[in-house]
Amino acid sequence: MITRLCVIGVGLIGGSLAMALRRAGAVGEIVGSGRDERNLRRARELGVIDRFDLDPGRAAEGADLIVLAVPLGAMKSVCIAISEHVLPNAVLTDVGSAKQTVIDAATAALRKTTERFVPGHPIAGTERSGIEAAFADLFRERRVILTPQRNTAAEAIHTVRSMWEQTGALVEEMDAAHHDRVLAATSHLPHMLAYALVDSLSRLDDRDEVFRYAAGGFRDFTRIASSDPEMWRDICLANGDAIATMMARYRRELEGIEAALARQDGARLFEIFTRAKRSRDRFVA
Amino acid sequence: MITRLCVIGVGLIGGSLAMALRRAGAVGEIVGSGRDERNLRRARELGVIDRFDLDPGRAAEGADLIVLAVPLGAMKSVCIAISEHVLPNAVLTDVGSAKQTVIDAATAALRKTTERFVPGHPIAGTERSGIEAAFADLFRERRVILTPQRNTAAEAIHTVRSMWEQTGALVEEMDAAHHDRVLAATSHLPHMLAYALVDSLSRLDDRDEVFRYAAGGFRDFTRIASSDPEMWRDICLANGDAIATMMARYRRELEGIEAALARQDGARLFEIFTRAKRSRDRFVA
Repeated sequence: MITRLCVIGVGLIGGSLAMALRRAGAVGEIVGSGRDERNLRRARELGVIDRFDLDPGRAAEGADLIVLAVPLGAMKSVCIAISEHVLPNAVLTDVGSAKQTVIDAATAALRKTTERFVPGHPIAGTERSGIEAAFADLFRERRVILTPQRNTAAEAIHTVRSMWEQTGALVEEMDAAHHDRVLAATSHLPHMLAYALVDSLSRLDDRDEVFRYAAGGFRDFTRIASSDPEMWRDICLANGDAIATMMARYRRELEGIEAALARQDGARLFEIFTRAKRSRDRFVA
Repeated sequence: MITRLCVIGVGLIGGSLAMALRRAGAVGEIVGSGRDERNLRRARELGVIDRFDLDPGRAAEGADLIVLAVPLGAMKSVCIAISEHVLPNAVLTDVGSAKQTVIDAATAALRKTTERFVPGHPIAGTERSGIEAAFADLFRERRVILTPQRNTAAEAIHTVRSMWEQTGALVEEMDAAHHDRVLAATSHLPHMLAYALVDSLSRLDDRDEVFRYAAGGFRDFTRIASSDPEMWRDICLANGDAIATMMARYRRELEGIEAALARQDGARLFEIFTRAKRSRDRFVA
């Protein structure tokens, strides 16, 4: 049982987590914080949080579990803001989509409570953001990856694992660098590709005509290009090396397809498409 | 009323068209043809077609409306096979995803009935193929683009337009070259990008691990990579120039993002992502 939960950043992820824990009866009081007062007022109206404080330090006071659910670019300043206010026995975690950068920020700012900070990442979300997009079932059957450090307290890991399990999530542990590389491949790279496609087409002279004839395939393919630009800018800055490696690899693959197109190499195209279809069908199954 | 409809290629598109016309009471007899006898038998069992003939020429005999719904690479040989069997008053159309190549094939093979051939393309589909994937509502509220030539008979255009309207589709006309460029942007390019992503990841040493942590965004983004490789090879060969132009443009966009990543240019990334999100949100609305 969490007596007092503090959620800093009550958006799609932070809000959904609060809703899921409330529904599970796993939490007493929920205190929110964030930079957008209107969003926090709305979260309180909706009953997602019990009260809020715009100052993350004051919001964190007295909490036994503190969740950092702000964009990656804000993690460092939030860690600094709360560091002097955290109870000695509090457990801290985050939900950032890149882990090494948060570990670095938390280690520098939290100092003596670093061993009670458990880096985490729920692999769940939608292209929407803010408290209005939150829902209690967001994490059901979804994976949550924890990337504890060598000095992370076992008891803190246990607390964070239990928290996620109560939302219906499947919790796993992984090395932070490995997490960052895997997510660059399956999440960060696809977001870059979708943003690039829509931006590329939106700069065509006849873009309105072009979009007019786009259908369901295009809609699904570009859904993630409706994601929050600030969040994705921060992910790029936080995990730039791994993303750049995957993008360069991908660009070489595209060049291969372009070359096959140029020489009308149907056999090569068929081979690439067949291998991709087989992998994708296996992934879905 | 179509007295006898001949559908050559009774797969997702041809089968769904037959089902929709049957349901609308718009057709008397439906004759199927194609290269896969098992698929045709199944279509007959399901009541989608009344009978079939593996020889497209014989299947086309006596039909007042003939629909070519085979992969683009088979259009030419099918046109040649039916050319001596088509009734002088029959109307022909196709469903190919690239139009100029089909126009060229039909013009060369059909000769005197060319003016009764109305090139068409329903912008509808799923990643599945074959008769088992067909359903009568596939075209409801979807656009169908007709690309008649200067010498196409007005009466033939009217017949094909009426046929599609009875499936619930929205019919428009467009120049063939313009169609091929617009579809390269919104359909053919995204398919290349999705195939390239899955193929690129499937050649990673730790691909199983990577796919294991892919989530909903990845699933949607790669859905079109489960499409039929033969069909997409044919589209590439048929519309290679327009696709290559769009791919080159796209690759320059990717290089721009890579450069911004390399110099940690958050402002530039934010600008690109924001513009893309705005365009995509406008497209969905």
